[in-house]
Amino acid sequence: MPDRRPRGVLLDLDGVLYVGDAAVPGAAEAVASLQRDGVPHCFVTNTTSRPRWAVVDKLARFGLTVDEEDVLTPVVVAVQWLQAQGVTRPALFVPAATAAEFAALDPLPADAEEGAGAVVVGDLGEAWDFATLNRAFRLLMAGPDVPLVALGTTRYWRAPDGLRLDAGAYVRALEYATGRDAVVLGKPNPAFYATAVEALGLSPGEVVMVGDDVRGDVEGAQRAGLTGVLVRTGKFTPADLQGPVRPDAVLDSVADLPAWLTGDPAAGGG
Amino acid sequence: MPDRRPRGVLLDLDGVLYVGDAAVPGAAEAVASLQRDGVPHCFVTNTTSRPRWAVVDKLARFGLTVDEEDVLTPVVVAVQWLQAQGVTRPALFVPAATAAEFAALDPLPADAEEGAGAVVVGDLGEAWDFATLNRAFRLLMAGPDVPLVALGTTRYWRAPDGLRLDAGAYVRALEYATGRDAVVLGKPNPAFYATAVEALGLSPGEVVMVGDDVRGDVEGAQRAGLTGVLVRTGKFTPADLQGPVRPDAVLDSVADLPAWLTGDPAAGGG
Repeated sequence: MPDRRPRGVLLDLDGVLYVGDAAVPGAAEAVASLQRDGVPHCFVTNTTSRPRWAVVDKLARFGLTVDEEDVLTPVVVAVQWLQAQGVTRPALFVPAATAAEFAALDPLPADAEEGAGAVVVGDLGEAWDFATLNRAFRLLMAGPDVPLVALGTTRYWRAPDGLRLDAGAYVRALEYATGRDAVVLGKPNPAFYATAVEALGLSPGEVVMVGDDVRGDVEGAQRAGLTGVLVRTGKFTPADLQGPVRPDAVLDSVADLPAWLTGDPAAGGG
Repeated sequence: MPDRRPRGVLLDLDGVLYVGDAAVPGAAEAVASLQRDGVPHCFVTNTTSRPRWAVVDKLARFGLTVDEEDVLTPVVVAVQWLQAQGVTRPALFVPAATAAEFAALDPLPADAEEGAGAVVVGDLGEAWDFATLNRAFRLLMAGPDVPLVALGTTRYWRAPDGLRLDAGAYVRALEYATGRDAVVLGKPNPAFYATAVEALGLSPGEVVMVGDDVRGDVEGAQRAGLTGVLVRTGKFTPADLQGPVRPDAVLDSVADLPAWLTGDPAAGGG
């Protein structure tokens, strides 16, 4: 556990604030407490299929009142990363609902086969036909310095009709074909956490990431220089504490976070 | 150079028997000599878009009279490998022109989402839409022991209208999504050479691979226990002899092969 408690907070959503269709008891009060006390915080999620307003809508259903600008998705982080790199004219391979969030970067028209400042890949789902993937490939090959930006490396997800390939498979296809590594702007990538910390106006050592995934949340954050706190909700299992990752603290749930931040010895421990 | 000259021969096509639209001088006579002397031999190529009869047709244009059963493509090798594994009902993700070569294995119907004995991936080109790649993925996930068989790992090729993704990109996508390594049945994979050697009824130490690619042909064959001979035609450059691969012999062209096989000291050297 760090000597000094962090000043800023990054909060995972699924498994921390809610589990399935149910709010985690005390989560709404904990978030309200952060807001009331002026604790710099962001809500971080790897979702690439929903824009920020949809995340805000979902949290509202669990009694959480959250500002859009406090939600960090890989899309938001990618926009900030591209701006920091001075990149414009990105070619977007993302769902229409999220493409709008790149508007300020003057995206490349969908029929252009050259001139991309970056190639941004998310979960296009059914829209991944040969011509589309080949266009992403050609745009990368047309410029040796054009970055391949991945909004995630998820392998697949479980849809109502069965398993479905996610963005990660297509990112790997492009990495292999071009011989180029993707910049991954989702958890647990360091670039994701670095951009999130910058959004809070703090340094990594001043920020805690709170999550239920001991690898993606806790280990990923620790590797980026943040404090990593694990909660015993969501996907947590006791075996998580037997592995190689040592959380800086383990809390019964996010409800204990405000007390832990103020150093209350009754709130959780290492 | 081995003490005893090999008894059987594997011959690369492009760059060894012909270069572009021109036959290599003496190639037809060299092949006729192997046939006349009863030297066990096969013609090996990584092409997956043409069936064997098309390869035979092409060689005939260069004055080479070759039997279909002496041509080994990744498709032919895949069929033999699947038979050796006792696998039937492969799900085929290969061009229609080559799918026919799998007929004896009773391929899975194109709409079946389970029950594949293997998933075989070639260069489907334009036919790679999301539903098709996702079907390959689901078939693999439906059976933990279902092998992913790749007919090649080429990244891309140059079509008249520009670069086009080849099978390798899709193989990598499936490997990543399933967490499973593909069995690659093209040069320079050891399984390819092992099957080719079996087709000759010989052991690896009795067979020489003759090629113009110091890595894919010579090194690949040597790793599989074959003798590897490099020819100074096709993609050969003098720099090939400065690298880490030591060919067992270097011949000016395939025209020198018959004399080299009989141990004629005037024919090439190490």
